[in-house]
Amino acid sequence: MSNQSETKKGITTREEDYSKWYLDVVEAADLAENSSVRGCMVIKPYGYALWENIQKILDAKFKETDVVNAYFPIFIPKSFFEREAEHVEHFAKECAVVTHHRLELDPATGKLNPAGPLEEPLIVRPTSETIIYDTYSRWVQSYRDLPLLINQWVNIVRWEMRTRVFLRTMEFLWQEGHTAHASRQEAEDRAKQMVLVYKDFLENYLAMPVLAGRKTEAEKFAGADYTLCVEAMMQDGKALQAGTSHMLGQNFAKSFNVSFLDEKGERQFVWQTSWGVSTRMIGGLIMTHGDDKGMIMPPKIAPLQAVLVTIFASEEEKKLTVEAAKELAEKLKAAGVIAKVDDRDERPGVKYFEWEKKGVPLRLEVGPKDVAKKQVIAVRRDNGEKAVIGVDEIVKQVKKLLESIQKNLFDRALKNQLANTKEIDDYSKFKKQLEENDVFISSHWCGSAQCEAQIKEETKATIRCIPFNNKAEKGKCLVCGQESKERVIFAKAY
Amino acid sequence: MSNQSETKKGITTREEDYSKWYLDVVEAADLAENSSVRGCMVIKPYGYALWENIQKILDAKFKETDVVNAYFPIFIPKSFFEREAEHVEHFAKECAVVTHHRLELDPATGKLNPAGPLEEPLIVRPTSETIIYDTYSRWVQSYRDLPLLINQWVNIVRWEMRTRVFLRTMEFLWQEGHTAHASRQEAEDRAKQMVLVYKDFLENYLAMPVLAGRKTEAEKFAGADYTLCVEAMMQDGKALQAGTSHMLGQNFAKSFNVSFLDEKGERQFVWQTSWGVSTRMIGGLIMTHGDDKGMIMPPKIAPLQAVLVTIFASEEEKKLTVEAAKELAEKLKAAGVIAKVDDRDERPGVKYFEWEKKGVPLRLEVGPKDVAKKQVIAVRRDNGEKAVIGVDEIVKQVKKLLESIQKNLFDRALKNQLANTKEIDDYSKFKKQLEENDVFISSHWCGSAQCEAQIKEETKATIRCIPFNNKAEKGKCLVCGQESKERVIFAKAY
Repeated sequence: MSNQSETKKGITTREEDYSKWYLDVVEAADLAENSSVRGCMVIKPYGYALWENIQKILDAKFKETDVVNAYFPIFIPKSFFEREAEHVEHFAKECAVVTHHRLELDPATGKLNPAGPLEEPLIVRPTSETIIYDTYSRWVQSYRDLPLLINQWVNIVRWEMRTRVFLRTMEFLWQEGHTAHASRQEAEDRAKQMVLVYKDFLENYLAMPVLAGRKTEAEKFAGADYTLCVEAMMQDGKALQAGTSHMLGQNFAKSFNVSFLDEKGERQFVWQTSWGVSTRMIGGLIMTHGDDKGMIMPPKIAPLQAVLVTIFASEEEKKLTVEAAKELAEKLKAAGVIAKVDDRDERPGVKYFEWEKKGVPLRLEVGPKDVAKKQVIAVRRDNGEKAVIGVDEIVKQVKKLLESIQKNLFDRALKNQLANTKEIDDYSKFKKQLEENDVFISSHWCGSAQCEAQIKEETKATIRCIPFNNKAEKGKCLVCGQESKERVIFAKAY
Repeated sequence: MSNQSETKKGITTREEDYSKWYLDVVEAADLAENSSVRGCMVIKPYGYALWENIQKILDAKFKETDVVNAYFPIFIPKSFFEREAEHVEHFAKECAVVTHHRLELDPATGKLNPAGPLEEPLIVRPTSETIIYDTYSRWVQSYRDLPLLINQWVNIVRWEMRTRVFLRTMEFLWQEGHTAHASRQEAEDRAKQMVLVYKDFLENYLAMPVLAGRKTEAEKFAGADYTLCVEAMMQDGKALQAGTSHMLGQNFAKSFNVSFLDEKGERQFVWQTSWGVSTRMIGGLIMTHGDDKGMIMPPKIAPLQAVLVTIFASEEEKKLTVEAAKELAEKLKAAGVIAKVDDRDERPGVKYFEWEKKGVPLRLEVGPKDVAKKQVIAVRRDNGEKAVIGVDEIVKQVKKLLESIQKNLFDRALKNQLANTKEIDDYSKFKKQLEENDVFISSHWCGSAQCEAQIKEETKATIRCIPFNNKAEKGKCLVCGQESKERVIFAKAY
């Protein structure tokens, strides 16, 4: 809400304290805030508008691949979790447990206490494999019922102890796709297809270059055969897992008896995938593009693409500039540009400052002289460049600038990623590098969980992914010196 | 999912058992089903597509009135509820209480038990006034921060003992709007505005005629000054509350200290409204339009508006009809009609039956003779009328038929409502009427909660609303004979 009382506080610079900078930007850009419930965030209207844009674009991409949406219960009976061993082991540590179904007044204390204990506790979904596959076990009977290609957009609860708005919160919003197939190959193809949908979305809309690849056994989803992922680099050289797609094999199918009669009349278990991205991506978006002035929104996802800021020193000038700005805004809107006029009685600097913090890609200044000259001054948020645009050309020029900003943001992020990815073959250099500053390190690894664990223990770096189409290259494992046939990507991660 | 194994079971007729009919239609139309979690439903893809359409249209209508979306936590601290006396008294009886934040293995039994008890239990939101207004208390400082016009689309949990899919479920989906204003008048206007948005949506999209009006004190929302509502009549003469809009006055503002400095620098409490509609509307939609063959979807909200059913007896005929149908489908889609080809190798009757159950407004039959004659046979779902349409005219004629179906559904429902609304001035006739069959009864009532309670106790009928623009008319209260200045609407309700 642009009309809420302004926070006067400045933004910590990235150099000073990157973590603090991040929180300052979230606040300054009016995206979200912590609520009174520990670890739960309030997504404010401007932040939610960004999520709505993300939903709209991704949802259309899912539907293009024949996925449909549905809705499954938020509560999962405890016993469902217990059916898949790896799954429950992972999620038991961090789940909100509903044990009662009403509150009752204690006359002695005047307080309300939980009452109506449940026979079986219910878990607030930390992910929905179990409840969905229980349903699928009834929906799938024959090969003709397959594939099932279903997604849901919902809220999720994981009881995190250390939370950070967007990046790690007790409650977050996400989508989770759940598919069931008649063959292993079809499921594998789907898992790969969806991680590539995420890569396309992240790169071409959020302007976030990502590495797509496969997780190691230690880093895969609890209950999956294997996990594919997209990993983005933040400006500080740390990694952010931006989306995952799991090949579940027949693990859950066996636990929940999701089976079908094949064309020969034989009973088979289905092959499954699940895949998701969450509001966490917004955290990644901020840390990829933001600068010391605040947020920078890639135009293709921006809730507001161009703001027309009127500049005036008198009522007469106000009338003149606001009228001109409104006319231009209508022109832009008719051409599909999300534009808005800022006609508030504030000094220009105050207005500029606000839209900069919010990361609006393009500012169009409309002063009395500009009106006289039939022009506006366009100022790019990404690099501060100014340009004079004649009003007759406004639609064409604004669109061109927005495209250029979109491209520049991606290029800049990619340049950062490439500049901060290093090939290192020596473990002491590897450790030294991560003590100095965070980067992605491409190193040889023998494939053993032990070496992986030792590196994590000693450096906090984990294997982010084994990239798709990785180059075959003989080498020696960083830690044990055993033979390795390819490099993998190490980094510290959010 | 049209590819799921078909339920062969027939639909109970409405005359036989209206309640059973309703459940049969929900199942036959593949809209939703009960999950393994007592009282929680699974909204199936076809039902969810309907909800997506509802969301899309309503959301645009909200935004036209300057409402923006946001997201607030699902958990509400118990102490928040306790701050508004009426509110907590109502909701304490039916809330899911989270008391622990993990599960721990008991080595003795091998079972997982709730562990990590919370200092303060959390309630899964049954409605979000308290958590949202706690947030508003920080957002609102000055009159310049007002009005706040925020909505959220979320899931809600109310621990209902007797549940029925869509109509009354433990978990449901809804939107809840929450506004804060500087003056009483502005809040009252907003409460009224939103109930009229609902009326417009229900009548012009869902084709459900409604009575808009005000609830009595006994029927208002717990914590409101007063409640406005829209009430629809189901085919069985019972009422369904399809949406409510609450004038909250300053009740919550005082409990949560939502206050602002006005233009004179004086501190004032804000005036608030909240308003919502839920997946319950889908239950109302079924009970308004459905018939003994299944669901009937109003075209403006239908996930599928026209299905092109191909009829063939040989591979050659299949090729011919499918090709023709696909071409027509493309034409229709290009013109904005949601169309689809059914080219399955099933007997025509089987295909017709399925789309009838699902309530697709228009069936277009494409057989080999039709292809030869460059025509299709159009069959309306609402009245079974057939028409021959030349393929050159298909877009125009289909659009015309869809409009006509939309209108007919509304007219039919309105006719039912008018035919089943009776003015009754005598309490024994009133009782007799409700013993015979359910109708809306327009009667005089003195305004006392006692007479209202007695009627509810003796007949199960409640006052559904005091209609807007009610005619002033002197009369005598049904029960006590005291003077009354207007009639109110009584009915049994879902």
